[in-house]
Amino acid sequence: MVDFEVRTDLAVEEQEHASGEISGVSLREWREADSGIKLSEVRILNEHGSEALGKPQGTYLTLELAPLTDSAPACQSLAARSLARQIRKLARQISADRRLTSVLVTGLGNRLVTADSLGPETVDNLQVTHHLTKPLSAGTAAGSTACGQLSDCPKRPHAALPSLRALSPGVMAQTGMETAQILRGVIRETRPDLLIVIDALAARSITRLGTTIQLTDTGIRPGSGVGNHRHELTRESLGLPVLAIGVPTVVGAVAIVHDTVNAFLRALERSAAPIAAAMNAMDSDEQYELIRELMEPEFATLYVTPPNIDEIVGLVSHVVAEGIQQALFLG
Amino acid sequence: MVDFEVRTDLAVEEQEHASGEISGVSLREWREADSGIKLSEVRILNEHGSEALGKPQGTYLTLELAPLTDSAPACQSLAARSLARQIRKLARQISADRRLTSVLVTGLGNRLVTADSLGPETVDNLQVTHHLTKPLSAGTAAGSTACGQLSDCPKRPHAALPSLRALSPGVMAQTGMETAQILRGVIRETRPDLLIVIDALAARSITRLGTTIQLTDTGIRPGSGVGNHRHELTRESLGLPVLAIGVPTVVGAVAIVHDTVNAFLRALERSAAPIAAAMNAMDSDEQYELIRELMEPEFATLYVTPPNIDEIVGLVSHVVAEGIQQALFLG
Amino acid sequence: MVDFEVRTDLAVEEQEHASGEISGVSLREWREADSGIKLSEVRILNEHGSEALGKPQGTYLTLELAPLTDSAPACQSLAARSLARQIRKLARQISADRRLTSVLVTGLGNRLVTADSLGPETVDNLQVTHHLTKPLSAGTAAGSTACGQLSDCPKRPHAALPSLRALSPGVMAQTGMETAQILRGVIRETRPDLLIVIDALAARSITRLGTTIQLTDTGIRPGSGVGNHRHELTRESLGLPVLAIGVPTVVGAVAIVHDTVNAFLRALERSAAPIAAAMNAMDSDEQYELIRELMEPEFATLYVTPPNIDEIVGLVSHVVAEGIQQALFLG
Amino acid sequence: MVDFEVRTDLAVEEQEHASGEISGVSLREWREADSGIKLSEVRILNEHGSEALGKPQGTYLTLELAPLTDSAPACQSLAARSLARQIRKLARQISADRRLTSVLVTGLGNRLVTADSLGPETVDNLQVTHHLTKPLSAGTAAGSTACGQLSDCPKRPHAALPSLRALSPGVMAQTGMETAQILRGVIRETRPDLLIVIDALAARSITRLGTTIQLTDTGIRPGSGVGNHRHELTRESLGLPVLAIGVPTVVGAVAIVHDTVNAFLRALERSAAPIAAAMNAMDSDEQYELIRELMEPEFATLYVTPPNIDEIVGLVSHVVAEGIQQALFLG
Repeated sequence: MVDFEVRTDLAVEEQEHASGEISGVSLREWREADSGIKLSEVRILNEHGSEALGKPQGTYLTLELAPLTDSAPACQSLAARSLARQIRKLARQISADRRLTSVLVTGLGNRLVTADSLGPETVDNLQVTHHLTKPLSAGTAAGSTACGQLSDCPKRPHAALPSLRALSPGVMAQTGMETAQILRGVIRETRPDLLIVIDALAARSITRLGTTIQLTDTGIRPGSGVGNHRHELTRESLGLPVLAIGVPTVVGAVAIVHDTVNAFLRALERSAAPIAAAMNAMDSDEQYELIRELMEPEFATLYVTPPNIDEIVGLVSHVVAEGIQQALFLG
Repeated sequence: MVDFEVRTDLAVEEQEHASGEISGVSLREWREADSGIKLSEVRILNEHGSEALGKPQGTYLTLELAPLTDSAPACQSLAARSLARQIRKLARQISADRRLTSVLVTGLGNRLVTADSLGPETVDNLQVTHHLTKPLSAGTAAGSTACGQLSDCPKRPHAALPSLRALSPGVMAQTGMETAQILRGVIRETRPDLLIVIDALAARSITRLGTTIQLTDTGIRPGSGVGNHRHELTRESLGLPVLAIGVPTVVGAVAIVHDTVNAFLRALERSAAPIAAAMNAMDSDEQYELIRELMEPEFATLYVTPPNIDEIVGLVSHVVAEGIQQALFLG
Repeated sequence: MVDFEVRTDLAVEEQEHASGEISGVSLREWREADSGIKLSEVRILNEHGSEALGKPQGTYLTLELAPLTDSAPACQSLAARSLARQIRKLARQISADRRLTSVLVTGLGNRLVTADSLGPETVDNLQVTHHLTKPLSAGTAAGSTACGQLSDCPKRPHAALPSLRALSPGVMAQTGMETAQILRGVIRETRPDLLIVIDALAARSITRLGTTIQLTDTGIRPGSGVGNHRHELTRESLGLPVLAIGVPTVVGAVAIVHDTVNAFLRALERSAAPIAAAMNAMDSDEQYELIRELMEPEFATLYVTPPNIDEIVGLVSHVVAEGIQQALFLG
Repeated sequence: MVDFEVRTDLAVEEQEHASGEISGVSLREWREADSGIKLSEVRILNEHGSEALGKPQGTYLTLELAPLTDSAPACQSLAARSLARQIRKLARQISADRRLTSVLVTGLGNRLVTADSLGPETVDNLQVTHHLTKPLSAGTAAGSTACGQLSDCPKRPHAALPSLRALSPGVMAQTGMETAQILRGVIRETRPDLLIVIDALAARSITRLGTTIQLTDTGIRPGSGVGNHRHELTRESLGLPVLAIGVPTVVGAVAIVHDTVNAFLRALERSAAPIAAAMNAMDSDEQYELIRELMEPEFATLYVTPPNIDEIVGLVSHVVAEGIQQALFLG
């Protein structure tokens, strides 16, 4: 009915919204037998599909988890393993080097704003390879092949480790620089084969917060993410394949308003004939314009977030970090 | 028009909303000559006023600041000084000991959620008197009466300092305990003369975020605050005078929705006669019920916050801490 | 040779230092078959033993781990499980309620000083039972019994959970209050059956940093811990059984100096007869007095810590939190 | 006497240690009339001076403050103003652009280790110019020219602001990259005129901790700083003038040991003739070798830090940030 655009960073939500088959968009859905996790793959194949979903051409993989909680650690492990599989699969499609030998991970967002801190938190939880390939310091070497002083404690293999680097550059308000600028410089110096970008996303539906993980090979575009990092991070702009991993942590205030107004009008329409007539007298564009005018301009920058956002970010950042580690080191 | 209740922790917003004189409520507004800061005092004098504003009887002082920025430090100083005056005034009204010799400050909220961290951040910025009254350690004593090695550097007086204690107990999800329980125990042990409670509030209007400071002698009630600390912190429950200082950092998602729906309906009403008729066919209660039903139940717990909430909390927590310090030490 | 006292919070180091059997002290050492972790139990049985080791009478259990690293997560799990066993064992000895139904955990120390933050970090990693026993909120309830939408994900049992509360009160420089005072108040209000105290300790040997976990039923005494929390936290002072868990994160600067001076003198003695003569001309007390005089008075407050202290605290706090959880919830 | 090298990052300590005039080194000392702060300027003029002090040729400015405390805020302002003067002076000497129109500030060190967090903390306290030059958002614009709604609140001028950028890249254990690599890339992209590097230093004397600020035009060399950032950050390596600002937050454990051993031997020497003889039988190199052998190899990586290091870093990072702001914006 009222049909103005409400922003979501999730292709799967755009696809749901469009409902029905769209030319230039393929959808595949399945459920992992071992974890019970639902996956979907939206492929935007051409210009028409891109316009229909408002997203660039490419692949969008989505994992739908049950809400993570501290009391079900096994679910976190299953989620990490499932994510690792999808990272490996997508990374190998886009990267010339199938063995992922040199990867730079960047955590976008502001670590001082809880809902925007998923990227930096994930990087904090990552173990860059530097630790493993350099000689261990005297303080940590002795006995480190065992849990006690025995040697029976399983360890990740150290030999021939991929090179994992990571950077949380901070947001423009902290650095005065575009994130793209910082990364372009670092990439030129360090020449990784693949960039993995972690960012907090905005979803359409609050049930997606902390429960949906999106992987895409399209990079990050202006206007996406919680913090709205303006310049794009893509293969074209940076010169290397970019795999973006995002998890929604906020819903735009506009989306919340939109849903309620829509529901309200639908209800009035059902109950009162004269209103249906009035609404029908306005076409969709007129309705859009009306609501847009009525909304406070500040709403565009406001977001909605649940009170336990710290727990959500804490748990999800561990899963994403573990997923990346497994994708690279157990692949 | 649509007139269902939307929560605000600010008495001044309830007063504005009611508009017009209310029996049992007195309002006084003025502007400080030296700082230009607007102040208002809402007094709820009896049961009728309490019901009309939905707040307990007592005094609500409000300071309205221009948004704080790093580039106008003088404004922060003026705000702190103005706040200090009001703290002193109100504290002396409610405390038997006019000299405020023993004060406990408690910062409510969750330090890991930016919008809820005003209380703990303020306590972090406070200097408890312990530092000043105990003998200085060897490491800091030498030359500490001067900036270089001269003795010309003005210092706060150390003699006869009030005793300032502070505690950020954390939220129930972190402690498993009611904040009221923790404080009751601590108060019984330390016997302060006055409790100052700092909390992040929910406002009705987004222009209030980080710009309005409310002081009240009514304490904290169930359901107020960002984190919704359930048991009350009042003179009655704790056995000592309680001065609460709050600053809005969020607007409830419900408020945002409400505003837009209202504006939407008003606009439709103006432009389309049949709708006005339809709306008029519903009375206010029916409208309320309709919207309530349409809203997702999760909305009640969601809040809206601006993207620069970290800066807002950072600046405001300094002003509030400085205000308390000045109230006690320069009084 | 030079034999002045250097502080350690570890009974096992005092025992090693004393070397040989001590009347009033029993020592038992063993290695866990499944984890390879070395354990020792020092029991101070009477006044004589207490004076000999400079520690109060009671039981001191010590786990000696290999250094924890991110690359051997299985070791962390083994360490947590082993710790859980010892917590259960000791807790049941000292607590009337063998089922540990109501436990308060307190994390001592200053979260803003990395080496002193083990207590608060551990509490941050704990899951207080409140989360599990209250009805889950709408946002997290749906599907939370599964990882995807299936129901096959193993969870910790929710029924008949022990009540776990936790508090990080901060240090005196932040609160202006003795930790003992705060806890006494909270205990009086909440009446737990057992207090578990987590604190960062000072060791004698740098190889103990982050690798030794000490459990004791003697509580915390003045002068122990990194932050030197002055008033004691014991059964006598607080009125309930106290189980203290400590992990060394620092070595006193005095200990470092002492070791080198000692080694230096030993070497001189071996190589140069005249010095041996000179040293022999001084008795042990004279040597002690001489070194004491020569040391800067500030040394007493300084501590030595390794550069990767953030990683050590991060890893150990997870193991201790997990150990407590398992002790209570899987016991 | 025993004369092995103990590391200090402060040229002024090397100069003191050498005691007496050194060819190729000039020393100037003075006291600021208005602040009472003691300043010294060590200039290393040629290769001989460089070898004598173990530091590269260049200028080393030192400010010696009284210990900063919260209770003497005026001292912090004086220190910031004095620092600003010295930054301007030195920056203009080394930078072609006397107006400092484009500056990149980088905070070295690990924000998760308190003693190593001075750089990141300072950057957190800086206000990058981006905030001031971009159009203010709707949420902060209204009324921001006043503290209340009046227009009398003094503000820093916005027009023709220098461009200030800032980055805290993290340490190699977090990024897997050399800091020099990251900065080289960022500098190539953003082309600033001057790099200001902030780092926590190691001093020889514990009285320097938090009280001495060193400015130098020689950049940062391998082995300096708390975190030992290995590759150099200099004009030669980065291609732009580099101004390094450092404040000691730690003393190497080796220095503490060295001082005591030295004092011990001196005392023995005075009191006992045979020891003097024995020591004299060893030459300085032999003494050095002996002590070196006796010291545990791990000592090299350990550092000593005072228990209130969080307060020291908090206060100093504000002064340094304010000093940089004033140097650029009030110059």
